[in-house]
Amino acid sequence: MENKNNHVVIMAGGVGSRFWPMSTPAKPKQFIDVLGCGRTLLQLTVDRLGDLVPKENVWVVTGETYAELVYEQLPEIPRDHVLREPCRRGTAPCICYAAWRIKKLNPKATMVVTPSDHLVTNTDEFRRVLKNGLQFAGETDAILTLGMKPTRADTGYGYIQADLTAASARAREIFRVDSFREKPNKAVAEEYISHNNFFWNAGIFIMSVSTTVNAFRIHEKETSDVFENMLPIYGTDKEQAAVNENFPKCRNISVDYAIMERADEIFVYPAQFGWSDLGTWGSLMEQSSRDIHANAVIGNEVRLYETSNCMIHTTDMKQVVIQGLDGYIVSEKDGRLLICRLSEEQRIGKMSE
Amino acid sequence: MENKNNHVVIMAGGVGSRFWPMSTPAKPKQFIDVLGCGRTLLQLTVDRLGDLVPKENVWVVTGETYAELVYEQLPEIPRDHVLREPCRRGTAPCICYAAWRIKKLNPKATMVVTPSDHLVTNTDEFRRVLKNGLQFAGETDAILTLGMKPTRADTGYGYIQADLTAASARAREIFRVDSFREKPNKAVAEEYISHNNFFWNAGIFIMSVSTTVNAFRIHEKETSDVFENMLPIYGTDKEQAAVNENFPKCRNISVDYAIMERADEIFVYPAQFGWSDLGTWGSLMEQSSRDIHANAVIGNEVRLYETSNCMIHTTDMKQVVIQGLDGYIVSEKDGRLLICRLSEEQRIGKMSE
Repeated sequence: MENKNNHVVIMAGGVGSRFWPMSTPAKPKQFIDVLGCGRTLLQLTVDRLGDLVPKENVWVVTGETYAELVYEQLPEIPRDHVLREPCRRGTAPCICYAAWRIKKLNPKATMVVTPSDHLVTNTDEFRRVLKNGLQFAGETDAILTLGMKPTRADTGYGYIQADLTAASARAREIFRVDSFREKPNKAVAEEYISHNNFFWNAGIFIMSVSTTVNAFRIHEKETSDVFENMLPIYGTDKEQAAVNENFPKCRNISVDYAIMERADEIFVYPAQFGWSDLGTWGSLMEQSSRDIHANAVIGNEVRLYETSNCMIHTTDMKQVVIQGLDGYIVSEKDGRLLICRLSEEQRIGKMSE
Repeated sequence: MENKNNHVVIMAGGVGSRFWPMSTPAKPKQFIDVLGCGRTLLQLTVDRLGDLVPKENVWVVTGETYAELVYEQLPEIPRDHVLREPCRRGTAPCICYAAWRIKKLNPKATMVVTPSDHLVTNTDEFRRVLKNGLQFAGETDAILTLGMKPTRADTGYGYIQADLTAASARAREIFRVDSFREKPNKAVAEEYISHNNFFWNAGIFIMSVSTTVNAFRIHEKETSDVFENMLPIYGTDKEQAAVNENFPKCRNISVDYAIMERADEIFVYPAQFGWSDLGTWGSLMEQSSRDIHANAVIGNEVRLYETSNCMIHTTDMKQVVIQGLDGYIVSEKDGRLLICRLSEEQRIGKMSE
């Protein structure tokens, strides 16, 4: 059921400091087998696409220093589909680059843009939503975002406010966006979820490459020019040198600010497919299976005594014995050890600096 | 000030299961830099002898499997002074072997027998005591034990009851032993230390080789015969094969039972030189320097937040962050991690099995 016009762009440039020591700048969380299932989050991101897109239509945008990790973990992806950013400039230049790059190959392409370090548990539903979304975006000039139906008043996500009136509905499941909202405080988050038209912004977008480059031309012209000017050398052996020279000129901005909050034809597809951004140890714990004492254990030969409500992630360790802990994160990776109360996990980045 | 008759026999065959994961059967605690000072306990045991005995008069008795570790850690000791036991038979056969072996070289030798995994903080006083003890044992047919002046009602040590009456005193500091006492319960330990004539048995003995072999001939004849029979081949290339064949015939018994509690001329030298047998994590903690929150930290790049009364031993780790622990042991070694309340440390051996 592959559609040759369907492409996927996986953004794999993140640094993941909140998951120290499992995730480090040298090997951030997308390159790690966070779930202890034998596949890294990046690999799972490709796996869950199934046959939705041909493998030769998968693209990964990542930092120069991570390219080898991508080649190694995704040998099935063409090497020249790993787009290498010489520096970090946020998601807007990343997506603009991919859109122009793909447009050169196929002006009729439609692309899913997705983070590389999220979790989806219901992959059938995920593929159904993406398939419908790709069709919708391919037939229109709309930019489609996926909105996750919220299950709690989470303050760690941005929210998308949808216009659920019938006049807005497209294809029955897709609605016009009223507004994007920053991460709220607790009270505001509770207000949001008391309505039924607020959704978590999953950072997954679907749009045709022509719609994408047009949106950049209108709303972020300088960035668009950078990548349009390189059109003749895409796919040649001059591409990387040109990107290395020109990419740093782009201003550092997220696609949300650059495009989503400015463009008109923005739609949201409310969905529910067991999504988590795995942004914190707590969210990983929530997604993991637990023992009868509510411990989530990812590791070998881990023995727990009088221990409950702990998140244990010690995949590199040969043997672990823990006695008498309640409500802690214990994680070891590559010679770095963290023991920290779950309630204090927001401090991990700072404590490990 | 070396005396060519002075020898030291270091017993290095122990397994140290209570210090898991730092200590494992493959590399027990005597072979480990427990204090994080750059020297293993075995090396410190040799270091603290200073010039009391010539290096060529140092002997190590250890298990066959640990011989390479000894060669590596004590390159200054003659290789044929590393006596290799083919199996574990307690301290009596170990000491009997060493005594016969040394007697063949020098019938006038006097030897200090010492464990390899203890700690001494006042090495000047330690050497003074040993020097006096060697002189006393060399001039008499006495067996001298060192008794540590107790600082608390410890239930983890055996006790030596001394006869402190003037009639018993030799060289002013040395007294006749009334009795050896097994590890007591708390009430008995408190009774012991309420008197001033009970001392901890440090397992350090001083006696001439002739006195030693005579004591074995009288009190443990079969063991003595095993080693006396091998006299002609000691120091030849047939020694190890003969030991491998005959050593297992010895019965498994400690020197305390075999000799100390049976012989007549047993003396004790009460002393105080900052001794600990480092038998538990708690005792290591007690001997370690502490930060202002009473944490003992042996490791690199260890950062503690809201953490107190913890024993941290993570010398293999590159970086450690601990938040919110009070009264725990945290230890990592060679891919094995322990987190355990100090109050539960007696369970470590069982929990790590």
